[in-house]
Amino acid sequence: MIYFDNGATTFPKPPAVRRAVTQALQSYGANPGRSGHSMSVRAGEALYECRKNAAKLLGAEAPESIIFTLNCTAALNTVIHGTLKRGDHAVISSLEHNAVLRPLEAMQQEGVSYSVAAVAEGDEEQTLDNFRRALQSNTKLVICTGASNVFGVRLPVERLAALCRLYGILFCLDAAQTAGCVPINMQQSGFDFVCCAGHKGLYGPMGTGLLAVNTDRLPDSLMQGGTGSDSANPLQPDILPDKYESGTPNLPGIAGLNEGIRFVLRNGEERLLNAEMKKAQRLYDGLSRNKRVVLYTARPDIKTSVPVISFNVKGRDSEETAALLNDRFQIAVRAGLHCAPLAHRSFGTQDSGTVRAVISAFNTDSQIAYLVQSLQKKF
Amino acid sequence: MIYFDNGATTFPKPPAVRRAVTQALQSYGANPGRSGHSMSVRAGEALYECRKNAAKLLGAEAPESIIFTLNCTAALNTVIHGTLKRGDHAVISSLEHNAVLRPLEAMQQEGVSYSVAAVAEGDEEQTLDNFRRALQSNTKLVICTGASNVFGVRLPVERLAALCRLYGILFCLDAAQTAGCVPINMQQSGFDFVCCAGHKGLYGPMGTGLLAVNTDRLPDSLMQGGTGSDSANPLQPDILPDKYESGTPNLPGIAGLNEGIRFVLRNGEERLLNAEMKKAQRLYDGLSRNKRVVLYTARPDIKTSVPVISFNVKGRDSEETAALLNDRFQIAVRAGLHCAPLAHRSFGTQDSGTVRAVISAFNTDSQIAYLVQSLQKKF
Repeated sequence: MIYFDNGATTFPKPPAVRRAVTQALQSYGANPGRSGHSMSVRAGEALYECRKNAAKLLGAEAPESIIFTLNCTAALNTVIHGTLKRGDHAVISSLEHNAVLRPLEAMQQEGVSYSVAAVAEGDEEQTLDNFRRALQSNTKLVICTGASNVFGVRLPVERLAALCRLYGILFCLDAAQTAGCVPINMQQSGFDFVCCAGHKGLYGPMGTGLLAVNTDRLPDSLMQGGTGSDSANPLQPDILPDKYESGTPNLPGIAGLNEGIRFVLRNGEERLLNAEMKKAQRLYDGLSRNKRVVLYTARPDIKTSVPVISFNVKGRDSEETAALLNDRFQIAVRAGLHCAPLAHRSFGTQDSGTVRAVISAFNTDSQIAYLVQSLQKKF
Repeated sequence: MIYFDNGATTFPKPPAVRRAVTQALQSYGANPGRSGHSMSVRAGEALYECRKNAAKLLGAEAPESIIFTLNCTAALNTVIHGTLKRGDHAVISSLEHNAVLRPLEAMQQEGVSYSVAAVAEGDEEQTLDNFRRALQSNTKLVICTGASNVFGVRLPVERLAALCRLYGILFCLDAAQTAGCVPINMQQSGFDFVCCAGHKGLYGPMGTGLLAVNTDRLPDSLMQGGTGSDSANPLQPDILPDKYESGTPNLPGIAGLNEGIRFVLRNGEERLLNAEMKKAQRLYDGLSRNKRVVLYTARPDIKTSVPVISFNVKGRDSEETAALLNDRFQIAVRAGLHCAPLAHRSFGTQDSGTVRAVISAFNTDSQIAYLVQSLQKKF
């Protein structure tokens, strides 16, 4: 299969990822942080190793600032539900995923409100101004994706974080689509929270996510339970990362994630992004020469995009195009709304959805050429 | 290492578990339920296969009644936070884990109260009576562990569920220590919720848990986000399992869990429990002949216990004993409070903690003999 569904999860993974998962299962598969025996200690070290590398990658203050979650959605929910209380207001961009939109919709019942600031593609000042105008006296949190998971458009998150800092508003970066390909330094950029999927640009296994914290204004914990620490205390410990890590963590997944992060650190995000963006541009150029293909954004640029291309074939539903690519050409792309109806409304594709191809470090030029050629054939 | 820390996580796993994890990572590692391409469909089938087998194991109504979670703690938090609202009351047993106690403590701030019903070891009627007397007119939920994770004492959960049914109170079974070795039929027993760890008696990898639902009185979702379903709707879907499964699931872990559950189904819980309890009795008998060892329960019985033995060596802290067993004999046991301070208060071991040995399907008679002998040596 020629795999371009890397926006959902990257495939394949670096071989070291699978080896680390297998090793964790086979040779030290004990519960970390619970017991004092050698296997449990080794498991605890594996978690810590991943925390250290994740902190390095994200520019977090310390390994303890890194919290392991099931996925990026769980990290975002921890920030959103834990921070916002009755009477509070949040601002999000018009390109946010349902992982941001749905928690906020649910919280309206609890007296939390939110506004959507329109992203003006190619006009950073306008985007910033839209955010500025959306801020209210009760705005407590701004949540913003690093880049649209549908259209690849990047947002001026450093400047948005600076705007939030100016007004004492917490800033949360949804880095689901950017971690691992766009450099992040959360301390330097003043991101209070960074939420990452482990299984996308960080090349870890599914079942892993990260919440990185860079503020003393800690959200309430969404869940409480055994942490292996301060067990006699019926209250959840207040220290990081224990406050947010109740119950047994995904040790094999995290061991794999550590190798994924090491792969990114070794290659460097800029180098990875550069190589992927060249392929994305090649794909865009190839598709733009095909008169039956509709594209929705300007030519992707390394400064303002990530390697995500959305398109449609004229006269065909996105799902139909994706099915034909799968059935006839063994090409894996995703179609539909990609869990981001807001973004589709911004680009007028809420009815058709889009076909999405996302480039990872493992896609080759010949795969790009094959996708372009396949779409040139009549189907 | 001679591993007896199976109450924290079982080790080793059946070889098919690791193979399934590896296969999911290597050959169909796409995001399930998001896309329509072959790899994503295959991944979705793997999830469904595990749901089917879990539903069979737990006597759930349908595969859709099975919700995948990060761990048992996440399943319990979903039930507790999602069910109880201001003014509601819950009843728990005196043997509950911090995964039950800490969420309830946290919810006191939100106007939720709870009572603890004392478990009378060996006196089921008294235990039932203690629960009955703890019920109030505003009691909405009873949460009860199938067996103490510290002392192995089982609770009369079927009769407690019947008591709850009588008063229209929801009953949640914490099956962290019983799933996979004590047969569960949730429909027949009237358990409204069953929460399981995937990585203990079900022999799956860490990072997996299950919430099985058997009621129309659905808890609110604790998190919301992308489900791959009904994407244009800003509200979380109300259908099972989507309502509680936001974001990317732990596909490789769940593929492994499916093989763990199949291992249990193939062997049968009763046969597994029978074999493990014989070893637990052998361990108990061996330890009871050692005058330096203190035991805390009656001899474990297949009808009233699971294969969990807590003990101490006179004059030694539990942590010290565990460290010596690790350092000198390469034996892995857990010491301390095991995240269950309530249970220790019931047995008067809150200061010393206990050393805990838990038997899995993979422990052998010679390992039991080795543990008994090691404790007979002067250390």
